[in-house]
Amino acid sequence: MATEKLDTSTEPTVKLLIQQCISAKLQVKPPSADGIADGEFVTIEKGIVAYVSFLKSATVESVTRAANITLNVKLSYDEATSKLQSALDTNGDVLIIPQACLGGKLKGKSFQYHNLMAKDDSHALYQVYIDQCKQIMAANSVKSSLQHGTYGNRQVLSVVTNGPFTHVIDV
Amino acid sequence: MATEKLDTSTEPTVKLLIQQCISAKLQVKPPSADGIADGEFVTIEKGIVAYVSFLKSATVESVTRAANITLNVKLSYDEATSKLQSALDTNGDVLIIPQACLGGKLKGKSFQYHNLMAKDDSHALYQVYIDQCKQIMAANSVKSSLQHGTYGNRQVLSVVTNGPFTHVIDV
Repeated sequence: MATEKLDTSTEPTVKLLIQQCISAKLQVKPPSADGIADGEFVTIEKGIVAYVSFLKSATVESVTRAANITLNVKLSYDEATSKLQSALDTNGDVLIIPQACLGGKLKGKSFQYHNLMAKDDSHALYQVYIDQCKQIMAANSVKSSLQHGTYGNRQVLSVVTNGPFTHVIDV
Repeated sequence: MATEKLDTSTEPTVKLLIQQCISAKLQVKPPSADGIADGEFVTIEKGIVAYVSFLKSATVESVTRAANITLNVKLSYDEATSKLQSALDTNGDVLIIPQACLGGKLKGKSFQYHNLMAKDDSHALYQVYIDQCKQIMAANSVKSSLQHGTYGNRQVLSVVTNGPFTHVIDV
């Protein structure tokens, strides 16, 4: 397991939001326009939902750090030890959701998204983030499931929780 | 509708997280220990889920501003105008969830909550926030429903969305 310090205090490059869930379901392909084909979904059981947004200053290095934080931060209640453990420790499933809007700033009564990374670059970093999470889970021989949303799609999400225990992390 | 500028850029006093939902269900009273009485739940239909955390610096004034922002920020997609409108404009239901952990800070692999307001003071401000939201909705003769979690309880939440469209607001 990574031992490097996870916390950061400089200007954010990646915005992470982590919620705990009992189960979650996410549409990864919308129904066909002609209504013939249904939408396609992925599901996870007990674990974490990780929403991610990439700001202009995001780099492969900071995204790798974000993946590390996502899987190593101790936010999942472990019945066995009655302590908060990481998703890796608790073999929790992971559902990754691209959520660019997390990087928005309130201006008047609306949000502005000037600080977001450009779409294509952000899409590339989204893939880096997924791959890094997969690698960390494989390296820790974790058997749980990692699912992720389709970048650019509407993220039609349903979540069942025993308390979301929501945390925001600037990386 | 409030016309004052909503955005703030000073040190946060209240942390708000707003998600859009199609419906949401929240336990407001857990099942009885003897298992005889079931848990009690509140539900909302289409609208917003507003998670709130009060930091040490929160005041009645900043909490009033947070209530104003919650109901006036334009984050709800309005089918009629194909524009983003506020919960007030769209007659959206509102589910308020106390979520102190939103005010935590990552330190190493764990979170610290040193900047949170003390429990009793925070509970009092939570009530101010609910009352303010109710007043704003009444003043705008909005027919939609406002429900809220029980402060101090585990927030057993389920949400169905057509895209959470998650936004974090520091007030």
